[in-house]
Amino acid sequence: MIAKKMQALVNNNSVIRMMFEEGQNMAKKYGAENVYDFSLGNPNVPAPDRVREQAVELLNNEDPLALHGYMNNAGYPEVRKKVAENLNRRFGTSFNENNIMMTVGAAAGLNCALKAIIDPGDEVLTFAPFFVEYRNYVANYDGVLNTVKTDHETFQPDLDALSEAVGEKTKALIINSPNNPSGVIYSEDTIKGIAEILEKKQKEFGTDIFIISDEPYRELVYSDTPVPYVTKYYDNTMVCYSFSKTLSLPGERIGYLVVPDEAADYEELFSAVTIANRVIGCVNAPSLFQKVVAECLDEKVNTGFYKKNRDTIYEALISYGFKCVKPEGAFYLFIETPVDDKEFTEEAKKEHILVVPGTSFALGGFVRLSYCVAYDTIVNSLPGFKRLAEHYGLS
Amino acid sequence: MIAKKMQALVNNNSVIRMMFEEGQNMAKKYGAENVYDFSLGNPNVPAPDRVREQAVELLNNEDPLALHGYMNNAGYPEVRKKVAENLNRRFGTSFNENNIMMTVGAAAGLNCALKAIIDPGDEVLTFAPFFVEYRNYVANYDGVLNTVKTDHETFQPDLDALSEAVGEKTKALIINSPNNPSGVIYSEDTIKGIAEILEKKQKEFGTDIFIISDEPYRELVYSDTPVPYVTKYYDNTMVCYSFSKTLSLPGERIGYLVVPDEAADYEELFSAVTIANRVIGCVNAPSLFQKVVAECLDEKVNTGFYKKNRDTIYEALISYGFKCVKPEGAFYLFIETPVDDKEFTEEAKKEHILVVPGTSFALGGFVRLSYCVAYDTIVNSLPGFKRLAEHYGLS
Repeated sequence: MIAKKMQALVNNNSVIRMMFEEGQNMAKKYGAENVYDFSLGNPNVPAPDRVREQAVELLNNEDPLALHGYMNNAGYPEVRKKVAENLNRRFGTSFNENNIMMTVGAAAGLNCALKAIIDPGDEVLTFAPFFVEYRNYVANYDGVLNTVKTDHETFQPDLDALSEAVGEKTKALIINSPNNPSGVIYSEDTIKGIAEILEKKQKEFGTDIFIISDEPYRELVYSDTPVPYVTKYYDNTMVCYSFSKTLSLPGERIGYLVVPDEAADYEELFSAVTIANRVIGCVNAPSLFQKVVAECLDEKVNTGFYKKNRDTIYEALISYGFKCVKPEGAFYLFIETPVDDKEFTEEAKKEHILVVPGTSFALGGFVRLSYCVAYDTIVNSLPGFKRLAEHYGLS
Repeated sequence: MIAKKMQALVNNNSVIRMMFEEGQNMAKKYGAENVYDFSLGNPNVPAPDRVREQAVELLNNEDPLALHGYMNNAGYPEVRKKVAENLNRRFGTSFNENNIMMTVGAAAGLNCALKAIIDPGDEVLTFAPFFVEYRNYVANYDGVLNTVKTDHETFQPDLDALSEAVGEKTKALIINSPNNPSGVIYSEDTIKGIAEILEKKQKEFGTDIFIISDEPYRELVYSDTPVPYVTKYYDNTMVCYSFSKTLSLPGERIGYLVVPDEAADYEELFSAVTIANRVIGCVNAPSLFQKVVAECLDEKVNTGFYKKNRDTIYEALISYGFKCVKPEGAFYLFIETPVDDKEFTEEAKKEHILVVPGTSFALGGFVRLSYCVAYDTIVNSLPGFKRLAEHYGLS
C-alpha cells in the first residue's frame, strides 16, 4: 500500500531496527554495563550551562507571542545577523543576515539546499565513505548520488578521481569535514584542490556546480588542524551547519544554511532555499532555540571529554594491531577490518562490542566505532578488542 | 540555475513578498495603527502560562542529555503515550503510543503522510477553497492535486462532486476542519458521507484511499458544533495535528500525526511515516517542546478573544450588506466579493484594509480576512468596510 519509493527504505529500516533490538536484548541478557555499544552517534556531553540559562531567561522575560510566533521562513533577522557576524569574526568572511537561513538542523539544511538546485536526473557526488542519509536526501529530489573514492591511508579525497567523475550532469558535491565516519579533516590543500577542479569543470561544461558542505562536527576538533571555511575558496558553496554536536542539542533540531553573495544567482537561490524550508514541511527553525543559539555562538561542549575517549581507544586499538587513521575531529574511528566488515561485526558481538559495518557508509572492509560514550565503556571494552585482535592474529 | 520545479515557486513568492512589502510601506506611510492588515494567519493570543512554566521546569530539572538528545524518530514514547491517552479520553478512540508520531508541526505531518503513500502520478483530492500549500506538499512527491467543489452557501463539501471525482488513481483526500479559509466545521453528516463514498470507491477500484485530516484549528471553535474525530468514521485515516494555534506556538514547530491500527498495512505505514520524518530532514519533532506539550494537552489559548473578534467583524460586515458564511472555528472569514476578488482587494487597499484574494485559495469571487488581530484593528477598520459596501452599493 505504501509508496514504491518508500518500500526499500522500510525494508532497510527493519535491518537497522533488528540491530538496535539485538543491542537491547544483549543489554538485558548480559547487563547494560557489560555491553559496549559504539553504534550510535549520539552526543553524550551535556549542553553548556549557558544554553539552559538563556532558554530560561527568554521564557521568563520575552513576550510569548514574539518568542513562539511565526517569523520569516529564513528565521529571525536579528538571529541571522548574529550568526553572520560570528562567522565573519571567526573566519574572515563577510556575510550578513541575508546569507543565513536558520534550519531544522543540518538535515533540513541539506534538504533545502538540494531541493533548491536539483532537477530529476541531476548528479550529486560525494566521497566514500559517507553518511548514507545523503543518498536518501538526494533521492527526495530524484537526483542521482554517485561516489568518488578517497585515499584509504588518509581518507582525504582522491582529487584525480573527482576530476574524472565530474560531468555535465553534476550539479553538486557534498563534502563533510570533520568527516563521519572517518573523523578526518579535509586540509586546506584538499579544499583548494576541489575548488580548482570544480572551477575548471564549470567552465568546461558551462554549468554551475555547488559544493554543499555539511559541517555538524566543525567545532569537534582535537588537533590544531584548521577546518577551512569553504566559501572562502569556492563561490558556489552552501554550508549546512548544526548545533546538534557543538551544543549537544540534537533533539532540538537547530542549525543554519549559509548562501554567500558570491553564489550563482544568489538572490534567486536564497529565495529558493527559503521556500524549500517552508514547502518541505519545516516552515522555520524552532523559534525559542533560534534565540538561544544566537546567545551561545561562542559556546561549545567540553570537547576534552571526546578527546580523552579518542586517545584512549585509538592508542589501545593501534597497540593491539588494528589499523585506523587517527581522527582529528568528530567522534568516530573508522577501523580497517582483517576480514569482511559484516563478519567482523558479528565476531565483535561475541565480545559484546557493537560497531557499524563500513558497507553502511558505502565502504566495506572497515567498521565505524562511535566514541561518544562513557569513558568506562571504552576502558571496559578494551580486553574484548584485545581478544578480537588475537583472534585475527593482528598482534 | 535553480531547479526547474522551484522556478514557479520562486516567481509566485515574489508576488507574496510584494504584497507584504506593500503592507509595510503602507504602515510607514500612514502609521501602523491606520493600516488594517487581515492578511496573515498568525495567532495573536499568548501561549497559556503553563507552557512557560513547564518549559522552565524541564530546563531546570531534567538531565540536558535526556531533554535535548536524540530519541526514536517518532518521538519520545512517553510523550506519544500521553497524547494517545488524551485523545482516547476526549474522543473515545483507542490509540496507544504506536499510533502517534510527533512532528515538526502539521506541515511536516502532512509531508510525512504524503511521502509515505504517494507515488508519482497518484491523485490527491481536496475541497476548494483550500490552504494552497497542499498543492506544494503534493508536488513534493510528484502527486497530482485536484480539487472538488463545495456548496458556496455553506462551504460543506459537495458529496456528489466527490463521488464523481474519486478515481482509480486517487490515493488520498485532504480535508481541513475547522477550515482555512472558510472557518466552517465539517458536520458529522459530512464526515459520514465522505467515509461512505470512499469505502464504496475502495471496493470498486480495489485500492486504499486515505483521508488525511489536517486539524490545526481543532480547538479553535466558537459554537457547540462538535468536530468529528475522523478515525472513528473511516479506517484509512491519518490525522495531522499542530499545537501552533491551540497553544499559540507556531514558531516552535510542534505537532503530531495519528496513524490508527485500522489503517491498511498499519505497521508498514507507521514505519514509512517515521522514516519519512527522518528522510525529509526533520529527523524528529523538537525535543523540549515534545515534553512541554505532553504536559499541556488540556490547555488552550483564550478562544474568547477570537470569538469576540469574529462576532464583531462578522456582524458588522453582514449589517453593511456583505455576504459571508458565519465561521464556527479557525480565525478566518471568507467574504463574497461584489466584483472580481483581485479588484476588490485593490479597492480595499484604498481603505488601508489588507485581505487575501480567494484565488489564492483556488476560489475566486471571495476574499479571506484573518481576524487574529488586535480588537482595535477590527473596530477601527469598520468605517472603511462600510465605505466599501457603499462604494459597491451593497447596503
